[in-house]
Amino acid sequence: MKRTKKERQQLLTETIADNPFVTDEQLAHQFGVSVQTIRLDRMELSIPELRERIKDVASKNYENEVKSLPLDEVIGEIIDIELDKRALSIFDVGEEHVFQRNNIARGHHLFAQANSLAVAVIDDELALTVKSNVAFVKPVKAGDRVVTKAIVRTQHTEKNRTIIDVTSTVNNEVVFTGEFEMYRTKGGNET
Amino acid sequence: MKRTKKERQQLLTETIADNPFVTDEQLAHQFGVSVQTIRLDRMELSIPELRERIKDVASKNYENEVKSLPLDEVIGEIIDIELDKRALSIFDVGEEHVFQRNNIARGHHLFAQANSLAVAVIDDELALTVKSNVAFVKPVKAGDRVVTKAIVRTQHTEKNRTIIDVTSTVNNEVVFTGEFEMYRTKGGNET
Repeated sequence: MKRTKKERQQLLTETIADNPFVTDEQLAHQFGVSVQTIRLDRMELSIPELRERIKDVASKNYENEVKSLPLDEVIGEIIDIELDKRALSIFDVGEEHVFQRNNIARGHHLFAQANSLAVAVIDDELALTVKSNVAFVKPVKAGDRVVTKAIVRTQHTEKNRTIIDVTSTVNNEVVFTGEFEMYRTKGGNET
Repeated sequence: MKRTKKERQQLLTETIADNPFVTDEQLAHQFGVSVQTIRLDRMELSIPELRERIKDVASKNYENEVKSLPLDEVIGEIIDIELDKRALSIFDVGEEHVFQRNNIARGHHLFAQANSLAVAVIDDELALTVKSNVAFVKPVKAGDRVVTKAIVRTQHTEKNRTIIDVTSTVNNEVVFTGEFEMYRTKGGNET
């Protein structure tokens, strides 16, 4: 069933609002049209290109915000962060991140993105991973853009400990989940 | 209490037999003597230097042995492997593997060594990590040599699944433990 242009443009607007990090290629694939058509749609709808959308979100100076490690030690790019609450990063999977044989991303790269986001979200000078429990839900391929969310659990935990739930998606499909128990010097969730 | 030379040399022989990957520096520290003394001890006892000891163990051609991935995709160096049973690797932690601030090795490098050993030990062309449960027991520093053992569990599991227990040590002290649930195309432990 082919959509009308109006239907497509409405769906396009909603899709980009849901996930600002979707690429034109992904949109073209999703709607069964050419990349050129998506570009024209965006121009008509005044939706900036992906690079601009990312710059928009990333314009805040996270360097002064993240306490637990220098920003260049984060694997992936932090897009949003609220210390001790939540954080969001994106990571573009390249050929160097996959197994040669099957083009599937190696687990430790997904782990690294999730783990470094769990470190970054901690509002402390020191944050170390104590334990983690991860599931590789769906294979990730070269060219995929992994969007990772870290949510700090608010319920009571041990002193100097914080639990963080991490979920990574590609095109809004969950590919990885993780639970990270972090050591910190100050506080934790018991306050 | 200072040991006699004879006592020290006997203990040295036992220590190297237990852990062939111990460095002269570690031995010197352990016995409270200089590195030069250890070297002289080794010469008298005809124990080859570490590099030679590693070459000895690594002289087997693991490239033809490991099925699930090319050997250069293993993080660390495989020292011993018996497919679907056990595997051993060593990984030397460098400055590039630690957090700038505290010199502590980043979790994903330890995870990568353990995970790639869990992949390598599988006797199948395809092995993918499904879940893993890891604990960072003790901080690892730049200069540390991490010795990682993977043991394949023999008890019954789901079809196409294999559970692998991984333990990493530095100077015989546990620094990391992990349980990896692997997907494989053929068999698993139920056979």
